[in-house]
Amino acid sequence: MNLKSGTEEACAACKYQRRRCTSDCSLAPYFPADQPKVFQNAHKLFGVKNTLKILKQLDPTQRVIAMKSIKYQANMRDRFPVYGCLAEIQLLYCQIQAGEEELLAVLAQLAFYRQNHQEQQEISSTNETF
Amino acid sequence: MNLKSGTEEACAACKYQRRRCTSDCSLAPYFPADQPKVFQNAHKLFGVKNTLKILKQLDPTQRVIAMKSIKYQANMRDRFPVYGCLAEIQLLYCQIQAGEEELLAVLAQLAFYRQNHQEQQEISSTNETF
Repeated sequence: MNLKSGTEEACAACKYQRRRCTSDCSLAPYFPADQPKVFQNAHKLFGVKNTLKILKQLDPTQRVIAMKSIKYQANMRDRFPVYGCLAEIQLLYCQIQAGEEELLAVLAQLAFYRQNHQEQQEISSTNETF
Repeated sequence: MNLKSGTEEACAACKYQRRRCTSDCSLAPYFPADQPKVFQNAHKLFGVKNTLKILKQLDPTQRVIAMKSIKYQANMRDRFPVYGCLAEIQLLYCQIQAGEEELLAVLAQLAFYRQNHQEQQEISSTNETF
């Protein structure tokens, strides 16, 4: 166990658990000392054991993304205790639906102008023939 | 503790924990006996204690939605061990971006036809004047 130097602060996870933060602390890269609430949210939703289990199952290269998603989910559950990150998913589905409706309306207008344009061109070519 | 009648099966949570499932089991409404994998996913990601804690903090009317979101997140983490439900959120953002690009392209076409239509009308009204 290598204790951090005096200038380095214990990470938010170790601070919360009142543990000594070592240089090989698995959670320190993801829970810096100045984000205690982020750790508390993750701890409340998943627990330290589960969070460490998720980290251990993954390649080191995948861990940053996995922890980003874990922290995101925990923060969303803190903000929306009932829906969690489903709140955002539902919002995005609504946004997609509204976008599709707008697109349909614009396509209908486009069809009208296209039809109109085609008719004008047919009239012009008929006039040119006579 | 009221044990379930002989015809009623223990819920997936009690089965997994090898507990007797009672009629007042808090997890039974959300983890039916025929969905053992759904419980295992929730158990793996959140743990039984955290799941029960979430339930206790909410009004009975909110619990169904909360458990739906909990099960959804757990199933997504099982499918996408790195991204979890961020996988879907990212997909939806991509869908929104693609939709916005499509809308912009259609709006550009619409502007062209509108301009064309306006010019045709101006020509027609000029011809009528002479």
